[in-house]
Amino acid sequence: MNRLLIAAFAATWMTGGIAMAQQSQPLSAQASDPGIMGWMQGFPPSPELTIRPGDADFFTFPKLRWTVCHFSQLMPVVNVDRGPEATSSLPEALDPSIGKISFTPLNGGADMTWDEAFDVNYSDGVIVLHRGRVVYERYGGCLDRDRLHAVMSVTKSITGLMAEALIAEGRLDENAPVAALIPELRNSVFGDATVRQVLEMTTALQYSEDYSDPNADVWTYSAAGNAFPKPPGYSGPRSYYEALQGIRKSGTHGEAFGYKTPNADVAGWLITKVTGQSLSEYFAQSVWSRLGQRREAYYTVDAIGTAYAGGGFNATLRDMARFGQMILDGGKAGGKQIVPEAAIARLRAGGDREKFARAGFALEGWSYQCFWWITNDAHGSFTARGVHGQTIWIDPTAEMVIVRFASNPIASNPANDPTSLPAYRAVAQYLMTQR
Amino acid sequence: MNRLLIAAFAATWMTGGIAMAQQSQPLSAQASDPGIMGWMQGFPPSPELTIRPGDADFFTFPKLRWTVCHFSQLMPVVNVDRGPEATSSLPEALDPSIGKISFTPLNGGADMTWDEAFDVNYSDGVIVLHRGRVVYERYGGCLDRDRLHAVMSVTKSITGLMAEALIAEGRLDENAPVAALIPELRNSVFGDATVRQVLEMTTALQYSEDYSDPNADVWTYSAAGNAFPKPPGYSGPRSYYEALQGIRKSGTHGEAFGYKTPNADVAGWLITKVTGQSLSEYFAQSVWSRLGQRREAYYTVDAIGTAYAGGGFNATLRDMARFGQMILDGGKAGGKQIVPEAAIARLRAGGDREKFARAGFALEGWSYQCFWWITNDAHGSFTARGVHGQTIWIDPTAEMVIVRFASNPIASNPANDPTSLPAYRAVAQYLMTQR
Repeated sequence: MNRLLIAAFAATWMTGGIAMAQQSQPLSAQASDPGIMGWMQGFPPSPELTIRPGDADFFTFPKLRWTVCHFSQLMPVVNVDRGPEATSSLPEALDPSIGKISFTPLNGGADMTWDEAFDVNYSDGVIVLHRGRVVYERYGGCLDRDRLHAVMSVTKSITGLMAEALIAEGRLDENAPVAALIPELRNSVFGDATVRQVLEMTTALQYSEDYSDPNADVWTYSAAGNAFPKPPGYSGPRSYYEALQGIRKSGTHGEAFGYKTPNADVAGWLITKVTGQSLSEYFAQSVWSRLGQRREAYYTVDAIGTAYAGGGFNATLRDMARFGQMILDGGKAGGKQIVPEAAIARLRAGGDREKFARAGFALEGWSYQCFWWITNDAHGSFTARGVHGQTIWIDPTAEMVIVRFASNPIASNPANDPTSLPAYRAVAQYLMTQR
Repeated sequence: MNRLLIAAFAATWMTGGIAMAQQSQPLSAQASDPGIMGWMQGFPPSPELTIRPGDADFFTFPKLRWTVCHFSQLMPVVNVDRGPEATSSLPEALDPSIGKISFTPLNGGADMTWDEAFDVNYSDGVIVLHRGRVVYERYGGCLDRDRLHAVMSVTKSITGLMAEALIAEGRLDENAPVAALIPELRNSVFGDATVRQVLEMTTALQYSEDYSDPNADVWTYSAAGNAFPKPPGYSGPRSYYEALQGIRKSGTHGEAFGYKTPNADVAGWLITKVTGQSLSEYFAQSVWSRLGQRREAYYTVDAIGTAYAGGGFNATLRDMARFGQMILDGGKAGGKQIVPEAAIARLRAGGDREKFARAGFALEGWSYQCFWWITNDAHGSFTARGVHGQTIWIDPTAEMVIVRFASNPIASNPANDPTSLPAYRAVAQYLMTQR
C-alpha cells in the first residue's frame, strides 16, 4: 500500500513510463492540442482544466501535451545560464518543398508526407538545419519559437557529451572504476564498473524499468528524485545519489547493452566530482553560454538540487538545433571550439554492435555510445532520443540536423520510429540533391 | 493541530515573517556566510548541511542566507525572458572613497562607514550607480555578479509599476471598483475597493500579518500560495486567487494605509485580466526583455502557476540596478521609452501622508504609492523595500540608484533602517560633490 502511495506520489514524468491510458484510439494531435483542450487557460483556469504539481495524471496523455512546456511551474528546477551575448542568428532558407516530401512508414502503412508526419507523431516543434541554415521550421501544441520544452532522455545525450569532453581533455579516466571517483558508490553495482561501461550502458544493473509492475525499481528511483516533501512514513532514498547507492548488481559488466536511466545519473555525478561544479553550472559554462542561445535552459532537480541528468533538461527548439549543429560541426560554433573534436569523434565511432543487439531493440545494426544512438547507416547518422518522440537527428553526409519535440501519447519510441526514421532519411536524401 | 501542520507545511518564506530564532545575538555576517556554514556544499552535501524543499526552517536564519539565492530549487517557478539582445554595458567608474564614507546610525550608535554597514546589514550585494555609472559594487554571502537573489517585497514595487504603466496607457482604470475587473473578487473585501486604493494599500482588509499568532490570516495565505501538494485533510484555499476571494472587510476603504501583501497579488491579478497575459510574460515583454539584462529572472508560483506578485521575484543585483536606472531616467533605457513617463511621475508624486502616518511606521513624512515608499525628503528619494533588507533606493537629485540584497536575521526593515537610510543619504551627499 505504502509503495503504491509513493508510486502515485512520485511524479510519473520522471520515467515517462506510465503506460498510456488504456484507450485504443487516443485523441488526435489536433483534438489533444492543449489550446483546444483548454488546459490552464484564463486567470484562474477552470477547476476541471487545472493541472497542479503532484497531480497523479499530469504527465499522462492528453495533459502531458501541456506539461511538456511547463515543468518549472510543476517542480523545482535550476536554470542554465545562456551568457551575456546576443542570440546568434540562424540563417534561414526555408524550402516549402520539404513539407511535401513523401516517405513509406516502416510498419508498412501508406506513404505519407513530412508535413503529415508532424501531427501523426504529435509533434510540438520540428526544425531542419541544412548546412547551418533553417530550411524547415514548424510549431504546434504548447510550443512556439521562444518557449521551452522538455527534451526527456535527450538529456542523457547532453550528459554523455559532457563526460566525453572531460575524457578527451584528460580530466576523466574512462578506464577508472566508478568507485575510484565516487566512493559513495563503492557498494553499489556501479562500484566496479568502469566509466566507459557506464557511458555505454553495459553495466549489469539489477533494475527493472517495467512500468506495469508496481514493485519495479523504477518507482523507487522516481520517488527518490521527486523534490517534493516526502509523505509520512516514506523511508526510501531521498535523492538520486541515495537511490544510485542502493542499486545492486546482477550479472557481469560489459557484456550487453541495457537501457537503464541510472547510468546517466552516475555520469552526471562523475561530472560534478571531476569539475567540482553542479551539472547545470558546468554545462552552462562549458557549452550553453557559448552557443549564442536565445533562452536560458533549465534542469528539473531532486530535493538536494541535483539536476536530473537522465531526463530533466528543458530548452527551446532553436537552441537545441544550435547545440546539434555544434556537434555536426565537430564541436565548433561561432569560430570557437566548444567541445573537443576528439569527443565528437569518439561519440560517432559508437559502441559495440553485438552488445547492442543483445538488448533486443528493433534497431538493426545500431550501437550506443555516451548516451547517443549510432545508426551505422550509410550516412553515419547518429541521434539523441527521448520518450514521447524527442529527437536530435544528425546526418553528417547530408549536412543536416533535425530537432523534434513531441508529446506522443505512447511513451515508447518504437511507437513513433516507423513514421520518423524513414522521414528523416527522406529529407536527408532530398537535401543531398540541393546545392 | 491541523492548522499548525499546515503552517509548518506552508513555506514560511512567503511571508518572510517567522520571527527570528530566539537568539539574542545572532551569528555575525561573516560567521553566518553560507560558504562558512557549509550549506549544500559537495556532491552530495552532508546530511546536517542539507536544505530541502519543505524543510520547516529553510527560510530562517542562518539557513536563509543560502536560501535567498536558491529559491528555484526549493519550489516551482516561472522564468522571465531577458530577450535576444546582448547584455547592455554598465559603465564603471569605481570610486574607492565611497566605502570610507561615514554616517551616524539613526539609533544613536557609533558612526560607521559604508563598508562596515555592508556586514552590519548582512548584505549579500550592494551596487551604487551614479549618473548611470557603477561607482560601488560588492558581493558577499551566497551572491556573485551573475547569480540571482530573492528581492522579496521589492516584487510588489515591480507589480505596482506595471499597474501604473497600464493606467498611464489608459488600459487600466484607477477609479474602477476591483469587482468590475475581477468578478471573482465581488464578495471579498476587494470587490468595492478601487484599483487606486489597492495600489495605495488603503483597502480595509480584515487580515492579520502577526507572525507570532498561529491563527493569523497570513498562515492561510501562505499555505494557499505553497505550490506543493497539500497534506491530507487540507481544506483551505489552494491558490493566491482562492485566498484573495476569502479575505473579508473590516472598516472603510481609503482611510488609512495598511501594509498588507494581498493587495499586491490583487494588482497582479488585475494586470493579467487587463493584458490577458501571465504576470511573468507581460513583465518580460513590456520591461525585462528591453533593458539589456544579463540573466532571465524568475517568479516563484503557486500550484496553478500564478506568479507571487507580492514577493516572489528573483534577479541579479546588476539587473535590478538597470531596472532602477530606467525608473530614475523617467522610464527610458537604451534610448527607448520602456514605461510611460507619466507612470513614473505618478509614482514619485506619492500617496497621502496622513493616511500613511496612521499605519504607525517610524518613517516620518513618508507616503506610499503603487507599492513604492516615497520619502518626501529634500532629494525626492523613493524606494522599494523587501524584508531582510532588500532595497532599491532612487535619489533623483543625486542622480543615484542603490540596490542592496541582504539576508538580515531579523525579518523587519526597522531592524536595518537605522544603519541603512542615513548611509544612503551620506553616499548621495558625497556624490553630489562629484562631477
